Amino acid sequence: MPLRTPLQYAHTHLNRHMAELLDFLRIPSISTQPERTPDVHRAADWLAESLRHAGLEHVQVIATQRHPLVYADWLHAGPEKPTVLIYGHYDVQPAEPLALWHTPPFEPVVIDDYIYARGAADDKGQAYIHVKAVEAFLQGSGRLPVNVKFIMEGEEESGGESLAAFVPQQTALLAADVAVISDTAMVSKDVPAIVYGLRGMCYILMDLTGPGRDLHSGGFGGGINNPINALGHLLARLKDEEGHILIPGFYDKVRPLSAEERAVLAKFPLDEAAWLAETGAPAAWGEPEYTLVERLGARPTLDVNGVIGGYTGPGSKTVLPSTVHAKISMRLVPDQDPLEVRDLFCRYVESLLPPSIKVTFTFRGGAPASITDYNTPAVKAAERAYATVFGREPVLMREGGSIPVVGLFQQHLGVETVLMGFGLPDDKIHAPNERFYVPNYVRGIQTVIHFLAGLDVPGSMA
Amino acid sequence: MPLRTPLQYAHTHLNRHMAELLDFLRIPSISTQPERTPDVHRAADWLAESLRHAGLEHVQVIATQRHPLVYADWLHAGPEKPTVLIYGHYDVQPAEPLALWHTPPFEPVVIDDYIYARGAADDKGQAYIHVKAVEAFLQGSGRLPVNVKFIMEGEEESGGESLAAFVPQQTALLAADVAVISDTAMVSKDVPAIVYGLRGMCYILMDLTGPGRDLHSGGFGGGINNPINALGHLLARLKDEEGHILIPGFYDKVRPLSAEERAVLAKFPLDEAAWLAETGAPAAWGEPEYTLVERLGARPTLDVNGVIGGYTGPGSKTVLPSTVHAKISMRLVPDQDPLEVRDLFCRYVESLLPPSIKVTFTFRGGAPASITDYNTPAVKAAERAYATVFGREPVLMREGGSIPVVGLFQQHLGVETVLMGFGLPDDKIHAPNERFYVPNYVRGIQTVIHFLAGLDVPGSMA
Repeated sequence: MPLRTPLQYAHTHLNRHMAELLDFLRIPSISTQPERTPDVHRAADWLAESLRHAGLEHVQVIATQRHPLVYADWLHAGPEKPTVLIYGHYDVQPAEPLALWHTPPFEPVVIDDYIYARGAADDKGQAYIHVKAVEAFLQGSGRLPVNVKFIMEGEEESGGESLAAFVPQQTALLAADVAVISDTAMVSKDVPAIVYGLRGMCYILMDLTGPGRDLHSGGFGGGINNPINALGHLLARLKDEEGHILIPGFYDKVRPLSAEERAVLAKFPLDEAAWLAETGAPAAWGEPEYTLVERLGARPTLDVNGVIGGYTGPGSKTVLPSTVHAKISMRLVPDQDPLEVRDLFCRYVESLLPPSIKVTFTFRGGAPASITDYNTPAVKAAERAYATVFGREPVLMREGGSIPVVGLFQQHLGVETVLMGFGLPDDKIHAPNERFYVPNYVRGIQTVIHFLAGLDVPGSMA
Repeated sequence: MPLRTPLQYAHTHLNRHMAELLDFLRIPSISTQPERTPDVHRAADWLAESLRHAGLEHVQVIATQRHPLVYADWLHAGPEKPTVLIYGHYDVQPAEPLALWHTPPFEPVVIDDYIYARGAADDKGQAYIHVKAVEAFLQGSGRLPVNVKFIMEGEEESGGESLAAFVPQQTALLAADVAVISDTAMVSKDVPAIVYGLRGMCYILMDLTGPGRDLHSGGFGGGINNPINALGHLLARLKDEEGHILIPGFYDKVRPLSAEERAVLAKFPLDEAAWLAETGAPAAWGEPEYTLVERLGARPTLDVNGVIGGYTGPGSKTVLPSTVHAKISMRLVPDQDPLEVRDLFCRYVESLLPPSIKVTFTFRGGAPASITDYNTPAVKAAERAYATVFGREPVLMREGGSIPVVGLFQQHLGVETVLMGFGLPDDKIHAPNERFYVPNYVRGIQTVIHFLAGLDVPGSMA
């Protein structure tokens, strides 16, 4: 299939494609905040409408227990052609702390080749690349070289339970030969990357309670246990100061890194000084027996993502607080089981607490880690597509984040996922001033056009 | 001096005295919150006006670096009569968490014999008892049996630096034979108490910083130290799980409890089950080698009063936070030095932190502990006054809270302070739904009338 026409279409309509992405970014579809539910639904409707305009069929906004899924397809390439399942998520992280944003998070602006907005890179910008690449085929050439299905999620940033329930029930609807997701980062502006391994996740909210109400720390201090001090003891026993997790049994199912894979990872071109400068931290840190690249992608973690308790206003207050809330997430690696890790965590915490402190847990979602085969024809097609557009082959890497749907697709649909990232390491995803590099939006659309065409090679999906 | 007239005056004007206290409580004079500064000043002006109406002279609102002091006196009893220095504070604690109040904290209401409002017991209600007792003499009988000076403070809940600077400079203005403060609690409604020992205070705000901005916990977890996890390690090393403080040198200057004093404290009628029920905690806690009464009044503590860091909104966010803020206070006992404790704390914390975490400290005020002689004539006069009004002698006790001014008066004015408390242990000071028992307001005014008259006994101030 000649690619001149869709590439030309993408080039001609670039301004409109940019304007549409900015519209998408204006919708504050923060899935974890209940008051944003109407905005999350609005984003789903907006995306469905956009898929219709692109020329896709069977566009549906599918109601779930929480936020809708958006489905669409185009299946006229012929039964002998491969079917590609394209996934993305239209929900975003909270924008707090708002005071640190230089421009409002939901009023996207383009400054010096970057779009600044919450969700610009994670994942609206990257997901929308696929909508526009498919539009370029359907509106430019009237057809696609392969069959295409879209499944777009609105809970990726807050547990993803609805998609996890949907996929096993809808294996026929979602059946495909390969999946593709753009929700990862390149190494740098000129060095693309294909991620072959992702960490899993186990996220737990924990509330510790001591006294039944806030007490005067003078009148009661020394006689009543303080839940914040007790949290300190707990945290110190969950992970040591070098990063080793101390929960009994936590590492039992961790698949050891093979010498071969350590050699692959050692080739990853990480500039540690530049990386550290980008974080703003005074020093790197972590398990001394692993390299930084290994620690960031191939080792499990335990991080407190947020904590609040007692008096947190300005100045001082002499209160012995009733309660403290901690949000704790563990990044998992193959072959850890998130539910088993959850149980190990909760049992261990309960075993550590004295009778003066009570605990409650809220499980906020888990997903196993995933590793995909990087020798498949689809990965090779992605490598060729990147090489054509970016002028060099992508690096193979493991990523520290979690994309639970990769494991879902493996387990229930039997398909491998190609992770074609167009983000950059300094896109500040999940942080203030998130951004997306405009040239990567443009080259991303071109790369996906080449990728979809590259799948249409006899035997490529064997 | 016959007491029938002032007691009759207090009885006749009770309704107005209640209404005035409610007006005082309506002023949200929260000294630690900068936006409340105008309210703190308004409370000072209100109090000055009230002292003028009571018949006091030389009423002054004295400007300071922060919140004003209020001074007033009546010195016509004669040079051979003792001079009493009456101290109270007109500032209050923050009202947060507001959602837990059953009625608005600055809209006082009387329900079932209790006044509910922030500051009702701590200290507006108790301080105002003295204003009304003096008014009963001056307006009822035209004179007082002793000379009286008032010094009222607006920073007691937030460091008290201004009074600490004022007292050493104004020793002539404040010269007195004895001081009296009502800012403590009785044992129960029928068992009054005189506090002879108070703990001191060292309050430090601490900010730990890891990365320069919030990072994605997937992309960076395992390679960058998390300041909240680091805080956990710090807290665990500051105090063990039984309540022993681990800062090197912290206990070096702690005066050991004598066998005689342990015997006095053992007589204190604490119903541990009722006390525990009042706290709502599942179990008591603390240094096992000391009794609960000893731990609450005669042992130093270290409590985290508040903590906040990372994402604290609803649900989850996978952030590796840049920073965490902790408010830590230590209650001190004789003969610990608050500045020395501050330095020991800061040096120890710095010695524990790895290069991946930076710390900043803000010292929020310190005060030494104090112990007064409970065999003075003034204490005996207070005992007689309580016995007359409440029908039983007060219990002698050490209190866990801090009233730094007691140490200031000892050090710079050479006077002992009588701590005549009219609060109750379940007044919920520093907590939501603070309250003050109305009969104690009434009996408090009567008790202070008897106390002031009781000081006018030949040789009583020898």
